[in-house]
Amino acid sequence: MAKKPKLLEDLFHETLKDVYFAENKILKTLPKMAKAAQSKELKAAFAKHERETRGQVKRLEGVFKILGKPARAKTCDAIMGITKEGAEIMKEYKGMPALDAGLLAAAQAVEHYEMSRYGTLRTWAEELGMKDAARLLQETLDEEKATDKALTGIAKSVVNIEAEQDL
Amino acid sequence: MAKKPKLLEDLFHETLKDVYFAENKILKTLPKMAKAAQSKELKAAFAKHERETRGQVKRLEGVFKILGKPARAKTCDAIMGITKEGAEIMKEYKGMPALDAGLLAAAQAVEHYEMSRYGTLRTWAEELGMKDAARLLQETLDEEKATDKALTGIAKSVVNIEAEQDL
Repeated sequence: MAKKPKLLEDLFHETLKDVYFAENKILKTLPKMAKAAQSKELKAAFAKHERETRGQVKRLEGVFKILGKPARAKTCDAIMGITKEGAEIMKEYKGMPALDAGLLAAAQAVEHYEMSRYGTLRTWAEELGMKDAARLLQETLDEEKATDKALTGIAKSVVNIEAEQDL
Repeated sequence: MAKKPKLLEDLFHETLKDVYFAENKILKTLPKMAKAAQSKELKAAFAKHERETRGQVKRLEGVFKILGKPARAKTCDAIMGITKEGAEIMKEYKGMPALDAGLLAAAQAVEHYEMSRYGTLRTWAEELGMKDAARLLQETLDEEKATDKALTGIAKSVVNIEAEQDL
């Protein structure tokens, strides 16, 4: 028997499992980042994003349901690598002036990874004619973009404060 | 003696080494992706981005020079994870209808990671008063954004063709 051809629907399903793993990993990482952050503004931003991430996990479960598959995670090497770098920043920069700048950079790397994945999944959902799934994925993509923008705003103020401390 | 405080300049230098590793890893990966791609358009896009990446490596070497440090790479776990996922796509989807869609998704994950890193480095270079470095980093950031946009355009046409094959 010939090998079953891997279609866009298979790729969509596998990438969905990858992102489901990533969101759950992020959910475990955000409280650690909020605890590590020095500025109140950054702590609040991480706490807010933790609440949002819970909603994003629910939306992914909605997409699995539309697809008629159980919500399962598959190890995502990319998010493991990105969060490992964040963990190293937390350890190496603990109590140091540049800690918050490093945490922000790590968080923005996570956001960009997610933006790329949700953009891809949304496009595939549209092609596969899954309008409701595409809508759910677009909602999360919009949230991730807004979070990244908010982090960029905080990054500028955090870096300004730290640059002054450096003088 | 007290531990030397880690300042923004240290973080900038360490992140620069991380991105230098990432670009060199991408330079090795792009010819494999170009070879694997089924559509001529995608092959050409990967070949073009390989040429651009060589220029981006040179720009990073220029930033190291401005910083007065030798150009050295430091293993970047994030890009290792992202490219590992791409390698899995190449293996699992070889000869399958959804291969190009998967390759595109992997390439866009790489682009987004780079966009986040260059955005961060550019902001830090500005704060540290390194105008020439900020300009070099901005040039690469603009290139990465343009590449991502071009890949999105190709993604739509590739996915359309594959969706038709799926019928």
